Amino acid sequence: MKAGVFQFCPKFGEVEGNLNLIENALSKVDADLIVLPELCTTGYQFTSHDEVEALCESVLDGSSIRRFIQLCEDRQFYLVVGIGERSDTGCYNSSVLIGPKGHIGTYRKVHLFNKEKTWFKQGDLGFPVWDIGLAKIGMMICFDWIFPEAARSIALQDADILCHPANLVLPFCPDAMITRSIENRIFTITANRTGTESREAQESFHFIGQSQMTSSKGDLFFRMGEDESGVHIVEIDPTQARNKQITETNQLWDDRHPETYIINRTGKN
Amino acid sequence: MKAGVFQFCPKFGEVEGNLNLIENALSKVDADLIVLPELCTTGYQFTSHDEVEALCESVLDGSSIRRFIQLCEDRQFYLVVGIGERSDTGCYNSSVLIGPKGHIGTYRKVHLFNKEKTWFKQGDLGFPVWDIGLAKIGMMICFDWIFPEAARSIALQDADILCHPANLVLPFCPDAMITRSIENRIFTITANRTGTESREAQESFHFIGQSQMTSSKGDLFFRMGEDESGVHIVEIDPTQARNKQITETNQLWDDRHPETYIINRTGKN
Repeated sequence: MKAGVFQFCPKFGEVEGNLNLIENALSKVDADLIVLPELCTTGYQFTSHDEVEALCESVLDGSSIRRFIQLCEDRQFYLVVGIGERSDTGCYNSSVLIGPKGHIGTYRKVHLFNKEKTWFKQGDLGFPVWDIGLAKIGMMICFDWIFPEAARSIALQDADILCHPANLVLPFCPDAMITRSIENRIFTITANRTGTESREAQESFHFIGQSQMTSSKGDLFFRMGEDESGVHIVEIDPTQARNKQITETNQLWDDRHPETYIINRTGKN
Repeated sequence: MKAGVFQFCPKFGEVEGNLNLIENALSKVDADLIVLPELCTTGYQFTSHDEVEALCESVLDGSSIRRFIQLCEDRQFYLVVGIGERSDTGCYNSSVLIGPKGHIGTYRKVHLFNKEKTWFKQGDLGFPVWDIGLAKIGMMICFDWIFPEAARSIALQDADILCHPANLVLPFCPDAMITRSIENRIFTITANRTGTESREAQESFHFIGQSQMTSSKGDLFFRMGEDESGVHIVEIDPTQARNKQITETNQLWDDRHPETYIINRTGKN
Protein backbone atom coordinates (compact mmCIF):
# COMPACT_ATOMS: atom_id res chain seq x y z
CA MET A 1 0.00 0.00 0.00
CA LYS A 2 0.98 3.64 -0.44
CA ALA A 3 1.09 5.69 2.74
CA GLY A 4 2.45 9.05 3.78
CA VAL A 5 1.88 12.54 5.11
CA PHE A 6 0.87 16.02 4.15
CA GLN A 7 3.02 18.55 6.04
CA PHE A 8 1.90 22.18 5.90
CA CYS A 9 1.23 25.33 7.92
CA PRO A 10 -2.42 25.68 8.99
CA LYS A 11 -3.57 29.22 9.76
CA PHE A 12 -5.24 29.70 13.11
CA GLY A 13 -9.03 29.95 12.93
CA GLU A 14 -9.19 29.79 9.15
CA VAL A 15 -10.91 26.42 8.90
CA GLU A 16 -12.26 27.02 5.40
CA GLY A 17 -8.86 28.10 4.07
CA ASN A 18 -7.08 25.18 5.73
CA LEU A 19 -9.58 22.72 4.26
CA ASN A 20 -9.14 24.23 0.79
CA LEU A 21 -5.40 23.92 1.15
CA ILE A 22 -5.67 20.27 2.18
CA GLU A 23 -8.10 19.42 -0.62
CA ASN A 24 -5.92 21.08 -3.22
CA ALA A 25 -2.80 19.31 -1.99
CA LEU A 26 -4.47 15.89 -1.96
CA SER A 27 -6.66 16.24 -5.05
CA LYS A 28 -4.27 14.37 -7.31
CA VAL A 29 -2.33 12.24 -4.84
CA ASP A 30 -2.08 8.53 -5.52
CA ALA A 31 -2.16 6.99 -2.04
CA ASP A 32 -4.06 4.60 0.23
CA LEU A 33 -3.45 6.34 3.55
CA ILE A 34 -2.44 9.92 4.30
CA VAL A 35 -1.82 11.34 7.77
CA LEU A 36 -2.39 15.05 8.47
CA PRO A 37 -1.08 17.07 11.44
CA GLU A 38 -2.73 17.60 14.82
CA LEU A 39 -5.46 20.27 14.92
CA CYS A 40 -4.88 20.84 11.23
CA THR A 41 -8.22 22.49 10.49
CA THR A 42 -8.19 24.99 13.37
CA GLY A 43 -4.56 25.75 14.24
CA TYR A 44 -3.04 25.17 17.67
CA GLN A 45 -3.15 28.06 20.11
CA PHE A 46 -6.62 28.69 21.44
CA THR A 47 -7.11 31.71 23.69
CA SER A 48 -10.59 31.17 25.15
CA HIS A 49 -13.17 28.49 25.74
CA ASP A 50 -15.53 30.34 23.41
CA GLU A 51 -12.95 30.01 20.66
CA VAL A 52 -12.56 26.28 21.36
CA GLU A 53 -16.34 25.81 21.25
CA ALA A 54 -16.63 27.81 18.05
CA LEU A 55 -13.82 26.08 16.14
CA CYS A 56 -14.24 22.47 17.29
CA GLU A 57 -16.66 20.24 15.43
CA SER A 58 -18.44 16.95 15.65
CA VAL A 59 -16.18 14.26 14.20
CA LEU A 60 -19.27 12.39 12.99
CA ASP A 61 -21.08 15.07 11.00
CA GLY A 62 -19.21 18.37 11.33
CA SER A 63 -18.71 20.28 8.08
CA SER A 64 -14.94 19.56 8.02
CA ILE A 65 -15.52 15.84 8.50
CA ARG A 66 -18.08 15.84 5.70
CA ARG A 67 -15.53 17.41 3.38
CA PHE A 68 -12.88 14.89 4.43
CA ILE A 69 -15.28 12.02 3.81
CA GLN A 70 -16.05 13.42 0.36
CA LEU A 71 -12.31 13.67 -0.34
CA CYS A 72 -11.79 10.05 0.74
CA GLU A 73 -14.67 8.93 -1.47
CA ASP A 74 -13.37 10.90 -4.47
CA ARG A 75 -9.80 9.74 -4.07
CA GLN A 76 -10.56 6.29 -2.67
CA PHE A 77 -8.06 6.66 0.15
CA TYR A 78 -8.01 6.75 3.94
CA LEU A 79 -7.15 9.82 5.97
CA VAL A 80 -5.96 10.25 9.54
CA VAL A 81 -6.76 13.83 10.54
CA GLY A 82 -5.93 15.75 13.71
CA ILE A 83 -9.00 17.81 14.57
CA GLY A 84 -10.59 19.69 17.46
CA GLU A 85 -13.60 17.62 18.48
CA ARG A 86 -16.76 19.03 20.04
CA SER A 87 -18.99 16.38 21.62
CA ASP A 88 -21.73 16.04 24.22
CA THR A 89 -19.09 15.34 26.87
CA GLY A 90 -16.81 18.27 26.00
CA CYS A 91 -14.05 19.21 23.59
CA TYR A 92 -11.13 16.91 22.78
CA ASN A 93 -7.87 17.10 20.86
CA SER A 94 -8.73 14.20 18.57
CA SER A 95 -7.57 12.22 15.58
CA VAL A 96 -10.07 10.65 13.22
CA LEU A 97 -9.68 7.77 10.81
CA ILE A 98 -11.84 8.33 7.74
CA GLY A 99 -12.30 6.17 4.65
CA PRO A 100 -14.19 6.18 1.38
CA LYS A 101 -17.30 5.01 3.22
CA GLY A 102 -17.13 7.55 6.01
CA HIS A 103 -15.95 7.94 9.60
CA ILE A 104 -14.23 4.81 10.95
CA GLY A 105 -12.85 5.72 14.34
CA THR A 106 -11.77 8.45 16.74
CA TYR A 107 -8.86 8.70 19.15
CA ARG A 108 -8.96 11.39 21.82
CA LYS A 109 -5.52 12.58 23.02
CA VAL A 110 -4.72 11.06 26.42
CA HIS A 111 -1.55 13.00 27.26
CA LEU A 112 -2.36 16.69 26.87
CA PHE A 113 0.56 19.12 26.52
CA ASN A 114 0.81 22.37 28.41
CA LYS A 115 -2.21 24.68 27.86
CA GLU A 116 -4.11 21.99 25.99
CA LYS A 117 -5.15 21.00 29.52
CA THR A 118 -7.06 24.29 29.72
CA TRP A 119 -8.92 23.83 26.45
CA PHE A 120 -9.46 20.09 26.09
CA LYS A 121 -10.66 17.20 28.21
CA GLN A 122 -8.39 14.20 28.63
CA GLY A 123 -9.07 11.48 26.07
CA ASP A 124 -11.47 8.80 27.30
CA LEU A 125 -11.40 6.28 24.46
CA GLY A 126 -8.12 4.51 25.25
CA PHE A 127 -5.86 3.59 22.31
CA PRO A 128 -8.10 1.74 19.85
CA VAL A 129 -6.90 -0.09 16.73
CA TRP A 130 -8.93 -0.43 13.53
CA ASP A 131 -8.57 -2.96 10.73
CA ILE A 132 -9.16 -1.23 7.39
CA GLY A 133 -8.33 -4.33 5.38
CA LEU A 134 -5.12 -2.89 3.94
CA ALA A 135 -3.64 -2.64 7.43
CA LYS A 136 -4.43 -2.35 11.11
CA ILE A 137 -4.25 1.27 12.20
CA GLY A 138 -3.64 2.86 15.59
CA MET A 139 -3.45 6.57 16.35
CA MET A 140 -1.72 8.73 18.92
CA ILE A 141 -1.23 12.49 18.96
CA CYS A 142 1.94 14.56 19.39
CA PHE A 143 3.04 14.54 23.10
CA ASP A 144 1.73 10.97 23.49
CA TRP A 145 5.14 10.03 22.02
CA ILE A 146 6.94 10.68 25.31
CA PHE A 147 4.93 7.96 27.05
CA PRO A 148 6.12 4.60 25.68
CA GLU A 149 2.91 3.08 27.01
CA ALA A 150 0.89 4.83 24.27
CA ALA A 151 2.67 3.24 21.30
CA ARG A 152 2.97 -0.03 23.24
CA SER A 153 -0.78 -0.15 23.90
CA ILE A 154 -1.39 0.27 20.18
CA ALA A 155 1.20 -2.33 19.13
CA LEU A 156 -0.06 -4.88 21.65
CA GLN A 157 -3.38 -4.76 19.80
CA ASP A 158 -1.58 -5.82 16.63
CA ALA A 159 -1.56 -2.49 14.84
CA ASP A 160 0.66 -2.46 11.74
CA ILE A 161 0.86 1.31 11.39
CA LEU A 162 0.99 3.91 14.14
CA CYS A 163 -0.40 7.17 12.74
CA HIS A 164 0.83 10.18 14.66
CA PRO A 165 -0.61 13.64 13.90
CA ALA A 166 1.56 16.21 15.68
CA ASN A 167 2.25 19.88 16.33
CA LEU A 168 5.78 19.33 17.64
CA VAL A 169 7.79 22.18 19.09
CA LEU A 170 10.52 20.29 21.00
CA PRO A 171 13.34 18.61 19.03
CA PHE A 172 13.33 15.09 20.50
CA CYS A 173 10.37 13.38 18.92
CA PRO A 174 11.59 12.51 15.41
CA ASP A 175 14.45 10.37 16.77
CA ALA A 176 12.26 8.99 19.56
CA MET A 177 9.75 7.75 16.98
CA ILE A 178 12.48 5.59 15.48
CA THR A 179 12.81 4.00 18.92
CA ARG A 180 9.00 3.59 19.13
CA SER A 181 9.16 1.81 15.81
CA ILE A 182 12.00 -0.54 16.78
CA GLU A 183 10.67 -1.41 20.22
CA ASN A 184 7.25 -2.28 18.78
CA ARG A 185 8.24 -3.51 15.30
CA ILE A 186 5.60 -1.24 13.84
CA PHE A 187 5.43 1.27 10.99
CA THR A 188 5.14 4.86 12.21
CA ILE A 189 3.89 7.93 10.35
CA THR A 190 4.39 11.26 12.11
CA ALA A 191 2.66 14.17 10.36
CA ASN A 192 3.84 17.42 11.86
CA ARG A 193 2.99 20.99 10.94
CA THR A 194 5.33 23.85 10.07
CA GLY A 195 5.42 27.56 10.76
CA THR A 196 5.16 29.86 13.75
CA GLU A 197 1.93 30.72 15.53
CA SER A 198 1.70 33.88 17.63
CA ARG A 199 -1.58 34.67 19.30
CA GLU A 200 -2.55 37.41 21.73
CA ALA A 201 -1.04 37.00 25.22
CA GLN A 202 0.44 33.59 24.30
CA GLU A 203 4.04 32.61 23.75
CA SER A 204 5.01 32.28 20.11
CA PHE A 205 5.24 28.61 19.04
CA HIS A 206 7.55 27.44 16.30
CA PHE A 207 6.70 24.01 14.92
CA ILE A 208 9.59 21.82 13.78
CA GLY A 209 8.21 20.09 10.66
CA GLN A 210 10.32 16.98 10.04
CA SER A 211 7.32 14.76 9.35
CA GLN A 212 8.66 11.28 8.87
CA MET A 213 7.87 7.66 8.32
CA THR A 214 9.64 4.55 9.56
CA SER A 215 9.52 0.89 8.62
CA SER A 216 8.61 -1.73 11.20
CA LYS A 217 12.36 -2.18 11.81
CA GLY A 218 13.02 1.48 12.51
CA ASP A 219 14.40 2.40 9.08
CA LEU A 220 13.64 6.00 8.21
CA PHE A 221 11.82 6.14 4.84
CA PHE A 222 11.98 9.92 4.83
CA ARG A 223 12.18 12.93 7.12
CA MET A 224 10.87 16.18 5.65
CA GLY A 225 12.53 19.55 6.17
CA GLU A 226 11.69 21.90 9.03
CA ASP A 227 9.87 24.37 6.79
CA GLU A 228 8.98 22.14 3.87
CA SER A 229 5.36 21.93 2.73
CA GLY A 230 4.08 19.02 0.73
CA VAL A 231 2.97 15.45 0.40
CA HIS A 232 5.36 12.55 0.86
CA ILE A 233 4.18 9.03 0.01
CA VAL A 234 6.02 5.70 0.09
CA GLU A 235 5.08 2.15 -0.81
CA ILE A 236 5.04 -0.21 2.18
CA ASP A 237 4.01 -3.74 3.02
CA PRO A 238 2.26 -3.26 6.37
CA THR A 239 2.18 -7.02 7.02
CA GLN A 240 5.93 -6.80 7.75
CA ALA A 241 4.86 -5.39 11.12
CA ARG A 242 3.31 -8.76 11.94
CA ASN A 243 6.74 -10.39 12.03
CA LYS A 244 7.95 -9.79 15.57
CA GLN A 245 10.94 -12.11 15.24
CA ILE A 246 14.12 -10.20 16.16
CA THR A 247 16.54 -13.14 16.11
CA GLU A 248 15.99 -16.87 15.69
CA THR A 249 15.23 -17.14 19.40
CA ASN A 250 13.89 -13.66 20.19
CA GLN A 251 10.26 -12.87 19.42
CA LEU A 252 9.27 -9.42 20.66
CA TRP A 253 6.01 -10.42 22.32
CA ASP A 254 7.17 -13.82 23.61
CA ASP A 255 10.21 -12.12 25.15
CA ARG A 256 8.20 -9.63 27.16
CA HIS A 257 7.91 -10.49 30.85
CA PRO A 258 4.99 -8.39 32.12
CA GLU A 259 5.10 -10.19 35.46
CA THR A 260 8.38 -8.37 36.19
CA TYR A 261 7.26 -4.90 35.03
CA ILE A 262 6.30 -2.13 37.40
CA ILE A 263 3.29 -0.18 36.16
CA ASN A 264 2.69 2.33 38.93
CA ARG A 265 5.11 4.51 40.83
CA THR A 266 5.97 3.07 44.21
CA GLY A 267 8.09 5.86 45.72
CA LYS A 268 7.06 8.71 47.92
CA ASN A 269 9.41 11.55 46.92
CA MET B 1 29.17 13.23 41.79
CA LYS B 2 31.57 11.89 39.16
CA ALA B 3 30.24 9.02 37.08
CA GLY B 4 31.23 7.27 33.90
CA VAL B 5 32.30 4.15 32.08
CA PHE B 6 35.27 1.99 31.25
CA GLN B 7 34.99 0.74 27.66
CA PHE B 8 37.39 -2.01 26.62
CA CYS B 9 37.75 -5.37 24.89
CA PRO B 10 37.60 -8.33 27.31
CA LYS B 11 39.24 -11.54 26.09
CA PHE B 12 37.09 -14.64 26.23
CA GLY B 13 37.89 -16.94 29.15
CA GLU B 14 40.80 -14.86 30.41
CA VAL B 15 39.22 -13.76 33.67
CA GLU B 16 42.53 -13.03 35.37
CA GLY B 17 43.79 -10.94 32.45
CA ASN B 18 40.51 -9.03 32.17
CA LEU B 19 40.54 -8.26 35.89
CA ASN B 20 44.13 -7.02 35.68
CA LEU B 21 43.18 -4.80 32.76
CA ILE B 22 40.22 -3.34 34.68
CA GLU B 23 42.25 -2.78 37.84
CA ASN B 24 45.02 -1.05 35.91
CA ALA B 25 42.58 1.18 34.06
CA LEU B 26 40.76 2.21 37.23
CA SER B 27 43.71 2.38 39.66
CA LYS B 28 44.07 6.15 39.38
CA VAL B 29 40.58 7.21 38.32
CA ASP B 30 38.89 9.94 40.33
CA ALA B 31 35.22 8.91 40.26
CA ASP B 32 32.26 7.98 42.44
CA LEU B 33 30.58 5.51 40.10
CA ILE B 34 31.97 3.57 37.15
CA VAL B 35 29.98 1.20 34.93
CA LEU B 36 31.70 -1.72 33.18
CA PRO B 37 30.37 -3.74 30.22
CA GLU B 38 28.21 -6.88 30.32
CA LEU B 39 30.08 -10.15 31.03
CA CYS B 40 33.28 -8.13 31.26
CA THR B 41 35.28 -10.69 33.22
CA THR B 42 34.46 -13.72 31.05
CA GLY B 43 33.76 -12.50 27.53
CA TYR B 44 30.50 -13.10 25.71
CA GLN B 45 30.28 -16.21 23.56
CA PHE B 46 30.05 -19.37 25.60
CA THR B 47 30.12 -22.67 23.74
CA SER B 48 29.09 -25.20 26.39
CA HIS B 49 27.38 -25.47 29.74
CA ASP B 50 30.66 -26.70 31.23
CA GLU B 51 32.29 -23.48 30.11
CA VAL B 52 29.47 -21.41 31.64
CA GLU B 53 29.77 -23.32 34.93
CA ALA B 54 33.53 -22.95 34.95
CA LEU B 55 33.65 -19.20 34.18
CA CYS B 56 30.65 -17.93 36.15
CA GLU B 57 31.12 -17.07 39.81
CA SER B 58 29.24 -16.27 42.94
CA VAL B 59 28.50 -12.54 43.00
CA LEU B 60 28.75 -12.61 46.79
CA ASP B 61 32.16 -14.19 47.33
CA GLY B 62 33.62 -15.22 43.98
CA SER B 63 37.26 -14.31 43.41
CA SER B 64 36.39 -11.60 40.83
CA ILE B 65 33.89 -10.00 43.18
CA ARG B 66 36.44 -10.00 45.96
CA ARG B 67 38.87 -8.15 43.72
CA PHE B 68 36.20 -5.65 42.69
CA ILE B 69 35.31 -5.03 46.35
CA GLN B 70 38.99 -4.45 47.14
CA LEU B 71 39.21 -2.00 44.23
CA CYS B 72 36.11 -0.13 45.49
CA GLU B 73 37.58 0.03 48.97
CA ASP B 74 40.96 1.26 47.69
CA ARG B 75 39.48 3.87 45.38
CA GLN B 76 36.41 4.71 47.48
CA PHE B 77 34.06 4.42 44.52
CA TYR B 78 31.11 2.34 43.39
CA LEU B 79 31.20 -0.08 40.47
CA VAL B 80 28.48 -1.57 38.33
CA VAL B 81 29.91 -4.71 36.76
CA GLY B 82 28.44 -7.08 34.19
CA ILE B 83 29.37 -10.60 35.28
CA GLY B 84 28.39 -14.23 34.72
CA GLU B 85 26.76 -15.32 37.97
CA ARG B 86 26.76 -18.89 39.29
CA SER B 87 24.24 -19.49 42.06
CA ASP B 88 22.32 -22.32 43.70
CA THR B 89 19.46 -21.78 41.26
CA GLY B 90 21.59 -21.70 38.10
CA CYS B 91 23.71 -19.31 36.06
CA TYR B 92 22.59 -15.77 35.20
CA ASN B 93 23.80 -12.91 33.05
CA SER B 94 24.03 -10.46 35.93
CA SER B 95 25.06 -6.98 36.88
CA VAL B 96 26.34 -6.25 40.38
CA LEU B 97 26.49 -3.00 42.29
CA ILE B 98 29.55 -2.94 44.54
CA GLY B 99 30.76 -0.25 46.92
CA PRO B 100 33.63 0.41 49.33
CA LYS B 101 31.89 -1.75 51.93
CA GLY B 102 31.15 -4.66 49.64
CA HIS B 103 28.37 -6.16 47.50
CA ILE B 104 25.22 -4.00 47.48
CA GLY B 105 22.89 -5.58 44.96
CA THR B 106 22.47 -7.86 41.96
CA TYR B 107 20.31 -7.56 38.85
CA ARG B 108 19.80 -10.69 36.73
CA LYS B 109 19.10 -10.01 33.04
CA VAL B 110 15.40 -10.47 32.31
CA HIS B 111 15.46 -10.21 28.50
CA LEU B 112 18.06 -12.66 27.26
CA PHE B 113 19.39 -12.18 23.72
CA ASN B 114 19.79 -14.99 21.25
CA LYS B 115 22.00 -17.85 22.53
CA GLU B 116 22.14 -16.37 26.01
CA LYS B 117 18.89 -18.32 26.39
CA THR B 118 20.91 -21.50 26.08
CA TRP B 119 23.48 -20.55 28.70
CA PHE B 120 21.63 -18.47 31.27
CA LYS B 121 18.39 -18.61 33.20
CA GLN B 122 15.97 -15.72 32.91
CA GLY B 123 16.49 -13.12 35.63
CA ASP B 124 14.24 -13.62 38.65
CA LEU B 125 15.01 -10.54 40.74
CA GLY B 126 12.89 -7.95 38.89
CA PHE B 127 14.38 -4.48 38.37
CA PRO B 128 15.52 -3.36 41.84
CA VAL B 129 16.75 0.11 42.73
CA TRP B 130 19.36 0.86 45.42
CA ASP B 131 20.03 4.10 47.26
CA ILE B 132 23.79 4.53 47.69
CA GLY B 133 23.45 7.96 49.28
CA LEU B 134 25.01 9.78 46.35
CA ALA B 135 22.20 8.62 44.08
CA LYS B 136 19.54 5.98 43.55
CA ILE B 137 20.80 3.34 41.13
CA GLY B 138 18.98 0.91 38.86
CA MET B 139 20.56 -1.59 36.49
CA MET B 140 19.56 -3.24 33.24
CA ILE B 141 21.69 -5.21 30.79
CA CYS B 142 22.16 -4.79 27.03
CA PHE B 143 19.06 -6.14 25.15
CA ASP B 144 16.80 -5.00 28.02
CA TRP B 145 16.98 -1.62 26.23
CA ILE B 146 14.50 -2.72 23.56
CA PHE B 147 11.76 -3.24 26.14
CA PRO B 148 10.71 0.20 27.39
CA GLU B 149 9.18 -1.53 30.41
CA ALA B 150 12.66 -2.27 31.82
CA ALA B 151 13.84 1.34 32.08
CA ARG B 152 10.31 2.40 33.08
CA SER B 153 10.22 -0.11 35.94
CA ILE B 154 13.50 1.31 37.22
CA ALA B 155 12.45 4.96 36.86
CA LEU B 156 9.09 4.35 38.57
CA GLN B 157 11.09 3.32 41.64
CA ASP B 158 12.73 6.75 41.66
CA ALA B 159 16.13 5.75 40.32
CA ASP B 160 18.30 8.72 39.39
CA ILE B 161 20.80 6.79 37.28
CA LEU B 162 20.14 3.83 35.01
CA CYS B 163 23.37 1.82 34.72
CA HIS B 164 23.47 -0.28 31.59
CA PRO B 165 26.32 -2.77 31.05
CA ALA B 166 26.14 -3.97 27.45
CA ASN B 167 27.70 -6.10 24.74
CA LEU B 168 25.88 -4.39 21.87
CA VAL B 169 26.15 -5.68 18.32
CA LEU B 170 23.14 -3.97 16.66
CA PRO B 171 23.35 -0.23 15.86
CA PHE B 172 20.10 1.06 17.38
CA CYS B 173 20.74 1.18 21.11
CA PRO B 174 22.83 4.33 21.57
CA ASP B 175 20.11 6.57 20.10
CA ALA B 176 17.36 4.57 21.82
CA MET B 177 19.01 5.19 25.19
CA ILE B 178 18.54 8.93 24.60
CA THR B 179 14.82 8.20 24.27
CA ARG B 180 14.92 6.07 27.45
CA SER B 181 16.49 9.02 29.21
CA ILE B 182 13.94 11.58 27.96
CA GLU B 183 10.87 9.42 28.54
CA ASN B 184 11.95 8.70 32.13
CA ARG B 185 13.86 11.91 32.96
CA ILE B 186 16.71 9.78 34.22
CA PHE B 187 20.48 9.74 33.77
CA THR B 188 21.69 6.78 31.72
CA ILE B 189 25.16 5.22 31.56
CA THR B 190 25.66 2.59 28.87
CA ALA B 191 29.01 0.78 29.15
CA ASN B 192 29.59 -1.27 26.02
CA ARG B 193 32.54 -3.40 25.02
CA THR B 194 34.62 -3.23 21.84
CA GLY B 195 36.27 -5.75 19.58
CA THR B 196 35.29 -8.90 17.74
CA GLU B 197 34.80 -12.29 19.34
CA SER B 198 35.04 -15.46 17.24
CA ARG B 199 34.61 -18.79 18.94
CA GLU B 200 34.42 -22.31 17.57
CA ALA B 201 31.21 -23.04 15.64
CA GLN B 202 29.73 -19.66 16.55
CA GLU B 203 29.10 -16.64 14.38
CA SER B 204 31.68 -13.90 14.78
CA PHE B 205 30.34 -10.99 16.89
CA HIS B 206 31.50 -7.44 16.44
CA PHE B 207 30.68 -5.15 19.34
CA ILE B 208 29.90 -1.52 18.55
CA GLY B 209 31.54 0.37 21.44
CA GLN B 210 29.92 3.83 21.62
CA SER B 211 29.55 3.74 25.39
CA GLN B 212 27.68 6.86 26.35
CA MET B 213 26.09 8.85 29.10
CA THR B 214 23.01 11.07 29.04
CA SER B 215 21.61 13.68 31.38
CA SER B 216 18.12 13.31 32.82
CA LYS B 217 16.87 15.46 29.94
CA GLY B 218 18.41 13.31 27.23
CA ASP B 219 21.48 15.43 26.58
CA LEU B 220 24.42 13.33 25.46
CA PHE B 221 27.41 13.98 27.75
CA PHE B 222 29.63 11.83 25.56
CA ARG B 223 29.58 8.92 23.15
CA MET B 224 32.86 7.03 22.83
CA GLY B 225 34.23 5.73 19.54
CA GLU B 226 33.45 2.28 18.13
CA ASP B 227 36.95 0.94 18.85
CA GLU B 228 38.05 3.33 21.57
CA SER B 229 39.31 1.92 24.87
CA GLY B 230 39.34 3.98 28.01
CA VAL B 231 37.63 5.61 30.93
CA HIS B 232 35.24 8.51 30.49
CA ILE B 233 33.97 10.35 33.57
CA VAL B 234 31.69 13.38 33.90
CA GLU B 235 30.43 15.42 36.82
CA ILE B 236 26.67 15.17 37.30
CA ASP B 237 24.04 16.22 39.82
CA PRO B 238 21.90 13.07 40.03
CA THR B 239 19.15 14.89 41.95
CA GLN B 240 18.22 16.60 38.65
CA ALA B 241 16.52 13.29 37.82
CA ARG B 242 14.06 13.93 40.66
CA ASN B 243 12.58 16.90 38.80
CA LYS B 244 9.97 15.33 36.54
CA GLN B 245 8.45 18.67 35.51
CA ILE B 246 8.43 18.91 31.70
CA THR B 247 6.40 22.13 31.39
CA GLU B 248 4.59 24.24 33.96
CA THR B 249 1.58 21.95 33.69
CA ASN B 250 3.20 18.65 32.67
CA GLN B 251 4.76 16.43 35.32
CA LEU B 252 5.95 13.13 33.89
CA TRP B 253 4.47 10.89 36.56
CA ASP B 254 1.28 12.90 37.14
CA ASP B 255 0.66 12.86 33.38
CA ARG B 256 0.81 9.08 33.08
CA HIS B 257 -2.60 7.43 32.76
CA PRO B 258 -1.96 3.75 33.59
CA GLU B 259 -5.71 3.07 33.57
CA THR B 260 -5.63 3.54 29.78
CA TYR B 261 -2.51 1.44 29.11
CA ILE B 262 -2.62 -2.05 27.71
CA ILE B 263 -0.09 -4.34 29.39
CA ASN B 264 -0.69 -7.69 27.74
CA ARG B 265 -1.24 -8.56 24.12
CA THR B 266 -4.87 -9.03 23.30
CA GLY B 267 -4.71 -10.23 19.68
CA LYS B 268 -4.63 -13.75 18.32
CA ASN B 269 -2.45 -13.44 15.21
